[in-house]
Amino acid sequence: MDRRSFIRTAGVGAGAAAATGLAAPAVAQGRIEMVIVSTWPRDFPGLGISAQRLAARLSEVTDGRIQTQYFASGERVGAFDSFDEVASGNAQAYIGADYYWKGKHPGWAPFTAIPFGLTYTEIDAWMKYAGGQELYDELAGEFGLKGFPCGNTGVQMGGWFNKEIESPDDLKGLKMRIPGLGGDVLSKLGASPVSLPGSQIYENLVSGAVDATEWVGPYNDYFMKFYEAAKYYYWPGMHEPGSQLCMGMNASWWGSLSKTDQAIIESACNEENARQMAETNAENGRFLERLVNEHGVELREFNDDVYEAFGEAAEEVIEEARDHSDLAARIFDSTLKARKEIGGWMAISDVAYSIKRNAVVGIG
Amino acid sequence: MDRRSFIRTAGVGAGAAAATGLAAPAVAQGRIEMVIVSTWPRDFPGLGISAQRLAARLSEVTDGRIQTQYFASGERVGAFDSFDEVASGNAQAYIGADYYWKGKHPGWAPFTAIPFGLTYTEIDAWMKYAGGQELYDELAGEFGLKGFPCGNTGVQMGGWFNKEIESPDDLKGLKMRIPGLGGDVLSKLGASPVSLPGSQIYENLVSGAVDATEWVGPYNDYFMKFYEAAKYYYWPGMHEPGSQLCMGMNASWWGSLSKTDQAIIESACNEENARQMAETNAENGRFLERLVNEHGVELREFNDDVYEAFGEAAEEVIEEARDHSDLAARIFDSTLKARKEIGGWMAISDVAYSIKRNAVVGIG
Repeated sequence: MDRRSFIRTAGVGAGAAAATGLAAPAVAQGRIEMVIVSTWPRDFPGLGISAQRLAARLSEVTDGRIQTQYFASGERVGAFDSFDEVASGNAQAYIGADYYWKGKHPGWAPFTAIPFGLTYTEIDAWMKYAGGQELYDELAGEFGLKGFPCGNTGVQMGGWFNKEIESPDDLKGLKMRIPGLGGDVLSKLGASPVSLPGSQIYENLVSGAVDATEWVGPYNDYFMKFYEAAKYYYWPGMHEPGSQLCMGMNASWWGSLSKTDQAIIESACNEENARQMAETNAENGRFLERLVNEHGVELREFNDDVYEAFGEAAEEVIEEARDHSDLAARIFDSTLKARKEIGGWMAISDVAYSIKRNAVVGIG
Repeated sequence: MDRRSFIRTAGVGAGAAAATGLAAPAVAQGRIEMVIVSTWPRDFPGLGISAQRLAARLSEVTDGRIQTQYFASGERVGAFDSFDEVASGNAQAYIGADYYWKGKHPGWAPFTAIPFGLTYTEIDAWMKYAGGQELYDELAGEFGLKGFPCGNTGVQMGGWFNKEIESPDDLKGLKMRIPGLGGDVLSKLGASPVSLPGSQIYENLVSGAVDATEWVGPYNDYFMKFYEAAKYYYWPGMHEPGSQLCMGMNASWWGSLSKTDQAIIESACNEENARQMAETNAENGRFLERLVNEHGVELREFNDDVYEAFGEAAEEVIEEARDHSDLAARIFDSTLKARKEIGGWMAISDVAYSIKRNAVVGIG
C-alpha cells in the first residue's frame, strides 16, 4: 500500500468508529506522520534498540495516531546527514548524539558529553531543573530545531590498550581511536587520536594500525570482540562520562503540533532517556563479568597521575570550545556550574554512599 | 456540576467534534476516570509535587480522556489507608512509598529502599532490566494490585544530631526518629528508634524528646527547619539509599484498560520516576549550599567504624526480613544480586569517575 492511500483508508476507518458511538480507543483523528532518522545502525545494541523503542512507543501510546516511520543510519540518509535532513524539513526528527554537530557549533558538545563533564544523574538534573533545556532550546532554535534528551549510555570505559598506561608519558605517540573532545585531550598529551567508524575499529586494532581504542562500555564492546585484539581494559573513561542522546525535531513542524501532542512526545522522550540508561547499566553489569570471566580481560584503573594530566588537558579543551561565542560560553558555564553544585551534592550522597557500602559489603 | 452529567456532556461534545471531520485532538472517546490517593500532603516539596505532576500528566497526554482526580493524604483517606482504598477498588490508584506496607509483607520494603540497598540508578536498572518489575508484579498480584515506579528521592542524608557520632558507642541510648528497617538497624546498635510523622518531628527535636532525626535530604529538610534544633548534619545515610515511590493500581481496573491506556500509564510513570530524581538532585545541590552558608549547618561524614557497624546490623535486619517467606527471600535475593552485579559496574563507572573527576576539579 502506498502512503497516501493508507492515510485515506485510515481516515475513513476513524470516521466509522466515531459514528458508531462505541468507546473506541481515541485514535485516528488528526493523524500525524513523523519520519525519524537515526544516527545508529538497525538493531544496534543499546543505542539502536533504544531509538527504535522510542519510535515504536510514540505510536503505541497514541494507538497509531502519531505514525512514526523509523530509518536507521543509511536507510534514508547517512548518520551525519540526519541533522540537515531534519533542519530542512525533509524528515520530522532525528535521534542521535548531538556532539556530532559540534562542527556547526561547539555548544552542541555539552548536550552529549564533554571530558570531565556530567554523569547521567547530573546531566538529567541539569537539563530538567538547572537551565540545560532552556540553553538547548536556544541553540537548537538557531538551527530551526527543537529537541529533548531521549537516552544516555552512562560513563564510558577508558578504552582497550595493548600496554599498561602507568604515567602520562605512556600516552605519547599512542595511536588511539577516540573522536571528539576526548581525542583533543589525548592530542594535548602527545597521543595521535584517530576517528574511525565502528565497523573499521576491530581490523585496525588487530593489524596494529591503531594501538588502542575506546568505544562505549562492556555491553557494546563485548560484541565488537576487542578482547581478541587488546589485553587491558581501562576504567573509568574521562572523555564521555554520561553521553546523552537527543531527539531533535524540525521546529516548524513542532510548532504545528497541539499542546497534547507536544506533551506526548516530550513524555516519551523522558521515558526512553531513563530506560536506555537502566538497560545499559543492567547489561554492562552482566557483560563486564563475561569479559573478565570468559575472555580473560584484564581490568586496569587509570591512576591519579594519568587522571590529573587528563584533567589539565580537558580544562584547555573546554576553554577553547567555550571561546567560540557568547552562547557557547553560556552553555559551558552552565554545565560547569551544574558540575559544581549538583556534583557537590552527588559527592556526599550517591558517590559517598556507594564507596562506603561497597567497602562494607565487598563490591568492586 | 455533578460527575454523571459532566460525563454525559463531555460525550456529546466528543461526538460533535468527530462529526465535523476536523482534525480535532483525539479525546473524549472511552473516557476513563482514575481516582488517585496519595501518601503525601498537598503541595509537599518533592514528593507531593511529583505525585500531583504525574496525575496532571496523565490527563495532559490524553487531552483529558484519562480523567485523574488526585487526593493528597487526608483529603479522601489517610496516607496509610491508601493501599486498602485501592486494593478494595474504592480508588483506582495510589502514589506512595511501598515500604509503608511491609507489615502486610516484608517483600514491599526493597521496592522502596532497604539499608545498604540500591541507589537510584541501580534500582531503576533492577526494576526495568534485572527482574525487579516481575517480582513486584508477583507481590502486588497477591494483594490485587499492579504498579510501576514513579519517583525516587535518591540517597537520604544520615540525619540531624546534637552530638558528634565518632564511634558506634555514640549511638547507644540515642533516641532517634528513624522509621522502618533503618530504625531496626539503629535498634540493633543500642539506639531507641522512634516513629514520628513529619509534622511532629521539629517540636520533639526542640524539646529534646528525641536526640536526633533523619528526614530526607537538604531540599526537604530545609523546610523542616531542623537546623534550628540540631547542629550536625551527617552524610551519607545508609537507611534509604534510593527511595523509590510507586503508583499502585487496582489490578481488576488495570486489566479492564486497553493496551494503549496501559502503555500511557506505564510511560507517564517512567517519565515521572526520572523527573522527580532530577528535580530532587538539582534542589538538593542548591539547598545544601543554603543550609551551610546561610544557616551555619555543620556537615559531618560517618566514619568507617560507624559504617561497618551499620553494615553488620543491616545484614541481620535483611536476613530477618528475608526469612518471612519464599517470595520475600526471592525479592531480597534478587535485589542483593543486582547490588553485586549492577553495583559492581557502577563502582568502576559512575562512582570511580566521580571520585577521580572531583579530586581533579576540586569538588566535595
